[in-house]
Order: sequence, then structure tokens, then C-alpha cells
Amino acid sequence: MAYELYYWPGLQGRGEFVRLALEEAGADYVDVARLPKSEGGGVAALRRVLDSPAEPHLPFAPPFLKDGDLIVPQVAGILYYLGPRLGLAPQGEAARTAANGLQLTIADLVAEVHDTHHPIAASLAYEDQKGAAKPRAAAFLAERLPKFMGYFERVLTRNPRGAAWIVGDGLTYVDLSLFQVVEGLRYAFPRAMAPFSDRWPVLARLHGAVAARPNIARYLASDRRIPFNETGIFRRYPELDGDARAA
Amino acid sequence: MAYELYYWPGLQGRGEFVRLALEEAGADYVDVARLPKSEGGGVAALRRVLDSPAEPHLPFAPPFLKDGDLIVPQVAGILYYLGPRLGLAPQGEAARTAANGLQLTIADLVAEVHDTHHPIAASLAYEDQKGAAKPRAAAFLAERLPKFMGYFERVLTRNPRGAAWIVGDGLTYVDLSLFQVVEGLRYAFPRAMAPFSDRWPVLARLHGAVAARPNIARYLASDRRIPFNETGIFRRYPELDGDARAA
Repeated sequence: MAYELYYWPGLQGRGEFVRLALEEAGADYVDVARLPKSEGGGVAALRRVLDSPAEPHLPFAPPFLKDGDLIVPQVAGILYYLGPRLGLAPQGEAARTAANGLQLTIADLVAEVHDTHHPIAASLAYEDQKGAAKPRAAAFLAERLPKFMGYFERVLTRNPRGAAWIVGDGLTYVDLSLFQVVEGLRYAFPRAMAPFSDRWPVLARLHGAVAARPNIARYLASDRRIPFNETGIFRRYPELDGDARAA
Repeated sequence: MAYELYYWPGLQGRGEFVRLALEEAGADYVDVARLPKSEGGGVAALRRVLDSPAEPHLPFAPPFLKDGDLIVPQVAGILYYLGPRLGLAPQGEAARTAANGLQLTIADLVAEVHDTHHPIAASLAYEDQKGAAKPRAAAFLAERLPKFMGYFERVLTRNPRGAAWIVGDGLTYVDLSLFQVVEGLRYAFPRAMAPFSDRWPVLARLHGAVAARPNIARYLASDRRIPFNETGIFRRYPELDGDARAA
């Protein structure tokens, strides 16, 4: 039976980390909310689960995955569950624990990126929190971005099985998520990310290697890949990007 | 060999979710950074791992656990790993996946609580971001707190194995973390949390049931339980609490 991914239609958002894994593996899946309404799609499809009066394993928010009757919530939870099934997890509990830790660190980074444009409330429009967004984004770019990128670069560089992938000697879902993070940061902060390949060359190489995977390249060129836009996690607001003079 | 927990000394913080599991299980563990410096404790103990020039599985930040040579990072990752070993995880992949999803949702809530007092930058003092903290905390209390509490109440109430615990019919690490969240929210926001037991009675009952567990009660009364303070996640800043008139 096909996996069912439930995520807000119209944006990459957190759902994209799951899509990349499903696409790389060539898995049979349905992106439920992107189906036409006549076929049960749209936001109503999400609400049917989130507001279900009977479902015991309610998710808190999209994305969530349905595998038959089982609901798997949270990006890191979904990828931990899918990883071995899609051939995208390393072998053995120690390596899977390391992969999970890295994915949870990516989740933290993603939440911080989101809050660069929504530092006060998710319920407010960006324009209504721009005043706080500017110092938040500036602190993110000055302090947090280099800390996260430097960390992933270090872990990659030290991988005892080689620096091609971040855990073990083969591609895992964590590499796909790192690709997405770099892609998103480059979209959102082109000035701040200009020195990326020079500062973090091993991570930049990984980004390129993921982009060149045949299934990923095909996916990125397809209309299944929603373009980045200003409703997702990674938004291009030039006033939040790094100082052009410093780029 | 004893588990080694690594976390900033002097605060409960995210380390407390791990401590509660270790304490409930009566596990043999060392809270490494709380050892005297002469015994290898203090922040230097954390830095030795975080700044290690050789360790391949570097954690991004505390807390992390060492089990022999294996480093397990991130609260949800640590609890997923420890759960079965401590007898605090449910049986079977489906229930463990549900527990992991709930724990990841707790992690999201904890990050949001942290940002009520640090909406701009972790590197700035609270006093330097108080202006943004007020609207962030107000939005958290008005929108997010009821959403999270209502969600956990709903999942608890619907547990097919009974509403005593949130997954299956026995205590798991998720219940311990829910206790800590409620305890922390009551400390930080006493006015906003005043109606807690009336609005979310099943969750309130779970909180009381965890507090009454013999090992937990002993731990809470011991000096191993660091009191809440204004360096942790849950901070009591009266100006961020709910409106006294509404309490």
C-alpha cells in the first residue's frame, strides 16, 4: 500500500524533508493534500485527521505519514521510521542513534530559521513582526548559522567511513535533509550564504552530490517540487539577509 | 557501567527530562558536570566532549548521554534510546513510534517556552529582549499553551488502553516528560496556569500520579533536583505571565 504523506499544500515546508526521502527511494506515495479536492485532497484532508473525533494517535500538526493504519508524526519521527524501509538508514543501533541525533539537530535549525521571520507569533503576519524579525535574523546569521554549518562540516569531515556522507559510507535520509537545509538557506539568505562553499566545502560537496542523484535531479526538475516561496520555512526577505557590504 | 549524563550544571533545563527517566528507573548514572571540578566535573567536562578534536559522533549541544563509548545526543534521542533499557518504553514499534512523536511534540513545546523569554537571541540577556518577550509570551499563553495542553489532554483521554498514561497501559518516559512540562509551566506562569486542573483534568491527574511515584517523590525531595530558577527553560518573570485580572 502506498505511503500517505499529509502536509499543507502549496509549500515545501517541513514536508519537504519527507518528500526527498520518498523520492530518492522511488517509493510509492501519495501527497494527500495536494490531490484535487474532488479526490479528497486540500487542507480538508489534513483536518479530517487532525480533528478526528476517534483517532487515538492524533498528530499535533502536519507533516505526518500514514502507513496503513499507523500514523507517524514529526519529521524526525517519520524519517526514523521510513529510513530502514526505504534503504536510507545506516545499519545498526549506534549508527541509527547518531543519524537520529543529527536529524533532531536539523529540526532545531529549521525551527530557528522559521523564527527568523516569525519571532513573535506564528499567528501574526510577517509584516506585523518585522521589527523583531530583523534583530532575530541578524543574530541567527551572525551566531547560529555558522555554529550549525560548522558543526555539520566537522561531523562530516570526521566520519570514520569517509566524508562523502554524514553517517556511515552510504547515503542516508540525513544527507537528503542537509541538502534541503543548504538549498533553503541559499534561497532565503543569498548574501549571507555567498561564502558557503568556501567556508564549508565538505558540506557543499555533499549538497552537490545529493543534487546529482538521478532520482533527486528528476524530482527537482518535476512539478512535484514546489518552488520555494514566502509561505514556507525558508523565505527570501532581503531585509533579513546579511549585509550586502559584507558579502 | 553507569550512564553518564552531560548537561549544564546549575539548572534543570533540557537535562531534567533525562534525569527524571534515570531516577524513576533507579538507574546507575553520573551527572557528570555536577561533579566537583577536582573529579572532572563542571562545564569543562562538557567542553571536553563538545570540543574534542577526535570524537566522530560529536553532539551539537548538551544534554547528551554517554553509554560506554556511544554518545547519544538530543533529549528525544536519549529517551528513545534509554526507554527500552530502563523499562520506560511501550512494547512494539507502533507504540514506540507514537511515544517518539509525542516526545518530539514536547520538544517543540519546550523550545517555544524557551523563546518566550529569549525571542531574539540566546546570546542576549533577557533584559535586552524584554520588549519582544512580552508579545511573544502573550501569544504563547493565548494560543500555543492551550493548543498543546488540549492536544495532550485529547491524546490521553483517547488512549485505548486507558487514560492513566499517555501511551499503552503503563508509565513511559513520555509521562515523565509531561509531568516536567506541567511542573515547569506552573512555575513559570502561575497566573496563566491557575485554571490548569479545571481545563485539563486528565493531564492534571497524570501530573499528580507521576509526582506520587516513590522514586520520583524521593528524587524531587532530594538535592539532586535542582530548584527551578531563572537560568533554565521555565523562568518566572511576572511581567510575562498571564493577566492577573484574568486569572
